Amino acid sequence: MEPHIEIDPEQVERWLAEFATFGTHGETGVWRTAYTPEWVAAADRYAEWCTDSELAVRRDAVGNVWGRLEGRDGGKAIVSGSHIDTVTPGGRYDGALGAVGALIAVAALGRQFGPPRRPLEAVALCEEESSRFPANFWGSRAIIGGIGPDDPETIIGHDGTSIADAMREIGLDPTRCSEAARNDIGAFVELHIEQGPILEHAGFGVGIVSGITAIRGILVELIGEQNHAGAFPMDLRTDPMAGFAEIASAVIDTADRLGRPAVTTVGRVMVEPNVATVIPRRVRFTIDARHPDPEVCRALCETQDALMRDIAARRKLDILLQVTSEHAACLSNLGILEKLREGAATEGVPVMELSSGAAHDTQQIAKIAPIAMIFVRSENGRSHTQEEFSSLEDMVSGIKVLAAGLHRLAY
Amino acid sequence: MEPHIEIDPEQVERWLAEFATFGTHGETGVWRTAYTPEWVAAADRYAEWCTDSELAVRRDAVGNVWGRLEGRDGGKAIVSGSHIDTVTPGGRYDGALGAVGALIAVAALGRQFGPPRRPLEAVALCEEESSRFPANFWGSRAIIGGIGPDDPETIIGHDGTSIADAMREIGLDPTRCSEAARNDIGAFVELHIEQGPILEHAGFGVGIVSGITAIRGILVELIGEQNHAGAFPMDLRTDPMAGFAEIASAVIDTADRLGRPAVTTVGRVMVEPNVATVIPRRVRFTIDARHPDPEVCRALCETQDALMRDIAARRKLDILLQVTSEHAACLSNLGILEKLREGAATEGVPVMELSSGAAHDTQQIAKIAPIAMIFVRSENGRSHTQEEFSSLEDMVSGIKVLAAGLHRLAY
Repeated sequence: MEPHIEIDPEQVERWLAEFATFGTHGETGVWRTAYTPEWVAAADRYAEWCTDSELAVRRDAVGNVWGRLEGRDGGKAIVSGSHIDTVTPGGRYDGALGAVGALIAVAALGRQFGPPRRPLEAVALCEEESSRFPANFWGSRAIIGGIGPDDPETIIGHDGTSIADAMREIGLDPTRCSEAARNDIGAFVELHIEQGPILEHAGFGVGIVSGITAIRGILVELIGEQNHAGAFPMDLRTDPMAGFAEIASAVIDTADRLGRPAVTTVGRVMVEPNVATVIPRRVRFTIDARHPDPEVCRALCETQDALMRDIAARRKLDILLQVTSEHAACLSNLGILEKLREGAATEGVPVMELSSGAAHDTQQIAKIAPIAMIFVRSENGRSHTQEEFSSLEDMVSGIKVLAAGLHRLAY
Repeated sequence: MEPHIEIDPEQVERWLAEFATFGTHGETGVWRTAYTPEWVAAADRYAEWCTDSELAVRRDAVGNVWGRLEGRDGGKAIVSGSHIDTVTPGGRYDGALGAVGALIAVAALGRQFGPPRRPLEAVALCEEESSRFPANFWGSRAIIGGIGPDDPETIIGHDGTSIADAMREIGLDPTRCSEAARNDIGAFVELHIEQGPILEHAGFGVGIVSGITAIRGILVELIGEQNHAGAFPMDLRTDPMAGFAEIASAVIDTADRLGRPAVTTVGRVMVEPNVATVIPRRVRFTIDARHPDPEVCRALCETQDALMRDIAARRKLDILLQVTSEHAACLSNLGILEKLREGAATEGVPVMELSSGAAHDTQQIAKIAPIAMIFVRSENGRSHTQEEFSSLEDMVSGIKVLAAGLHRLAY
């Protein structure tokens, strides 16, 4: 029988509350984008907490903050962490829970069990949300050596600042990003809020993530003929809005019919000229389709593409499809999943397994190490909003499962 | 047998070409909004042409330019004209044809037949398109006494200028708008390009307009729940985009099924937050529905409203409908239509009858006088674009039918 891991709920509550003060927005929101003063304050505090917890602190070339417990046998490190930036505004838990939770878990293990066999690390990743720069997974991409030499100067933020300038402003050298790359990570486990309603609907506080979904994002352009809304009979129109409406219904239906965990979202629409009394000339829109099984995801996308092309051809509309994002599915490591299951059982935390429909830093790290994730229940499935909420009890349970898993991996 | 009306095609071509120089935009476009220097130049030239044509010129309080041939028996005036402002950019014929054509027709009648029995007037209306100020039909509304005392100061243009300031800048007194009202118009006939493809498809150069469509414009707001595009299963979403797509298809279908002359257009869509990876919180969109028969228009709108409410209820979306514009149908006067038919026959111009799906100044004047309209074929049905084109032959035919009709009304 493994010993219980001692996690102090009061510390979890206190640290997450303090972390939320770095970029407080409204009552319960947080607005903390990469390399801003709020972000610097959060990273500094994370480093202090590492020191207070007797972990060796290191900041890498892009500003990820690492707290390390050295391993008796050396070897590759067992790592946990998440991002400390937010959407604008976001809530208090997305990212923060996984960064702070990893530190609390690693510190608790060191305190309770002494030095681990293998190195154990907690990490606060600098950027994941793309909320200041169009550069998502900046922190985790740096760790896998995925940042190109020109990226810092050429990636321009929504405020016009390059990522290189933003780094220099806080004392980081953008020419050294490649130095953040690591080849000594033996396993990576990320704790994160679910951001969906599946755990809540099933009545679980914690979930073990079997894999992260494959995603294909496309931008579709439908071109018809702009004409007067009154003077043009229906039978002579080539109306891209009518085509868009039919296509949006059809692609959403494909995911509806396929059932969980397939999803398809039309989130963005741009109409030209977008005037009430004018039949539009052009409608552009996005389709985001996801499924954790790569084959099913591919089939879903092919069905959607065929439907779109048929509808456009029948309506005599020109259609252009452009793939704007493509993320391969990322399966969790079966060995790590087994250790998380065992840990949850020992800690007395009931868990269910589910897949992640959202993208996470973990899928970057998956390119260099075996991975898994743990989800904590989100109230009403909400995230990326100030209303985002997870209960302290669920968060502590999630940290316990994480710590129990890390214990099995590192000791 | 009535005499032929002598219309000089060379003059029609020359005057319309010169008129298009006031606000030339690109190769064939015109950008001429109310009370701008281009507009002043056009109005001044129109007044000169009136004088040259031996018509008495008068400018009213809002800047409409009138050319009058006094009637031997007095009485109410027989009037023809159209607007001289354009959309941004528009073409050379929308509005201009009817203003210049009316002047050419009235002048030709005076030259050929001497003083009429009843007064005969041509008018260049100052504003119809709402392209500078949200004040459409400004010219024709002034004529029917439809401008409120506060309107000039409170209607603010898209450039921030009030209509009152714009008027003062060119020497008009905005406090005197009510003086433009007339109660002595006996008939109004407007010549205009069709702005649709019906004449072209039927093979006619000129059409006689039996009535102007009823229009109902609404703004619909659908509110669902904003959530993460990946983490939220399809079966737990309340997605206003899915509701919008179904509604847009449904309302467009109602007009499709009803057939000509019913039309329905979804021209404007606003999505919040309009991000590819987020299920929207809110989708707002416009529905413009038209039919020249008031009963059929009402039934069409009721069907559409019921469909929308059903779809929203089934999808658990909140729905708000707001009527943003409502124009009653406007039937042409049967007596004037008969005179236009006779005139067309005498002039040897084949005509078809059709209804107008677009709104026109004529429907304002209809509130104080019997009205009718004449349409000239638009190439490819295009208007509100630099590509707008009508042939000289068709325009001359249209002016002949107008002049022949005015002759029957005034002599």
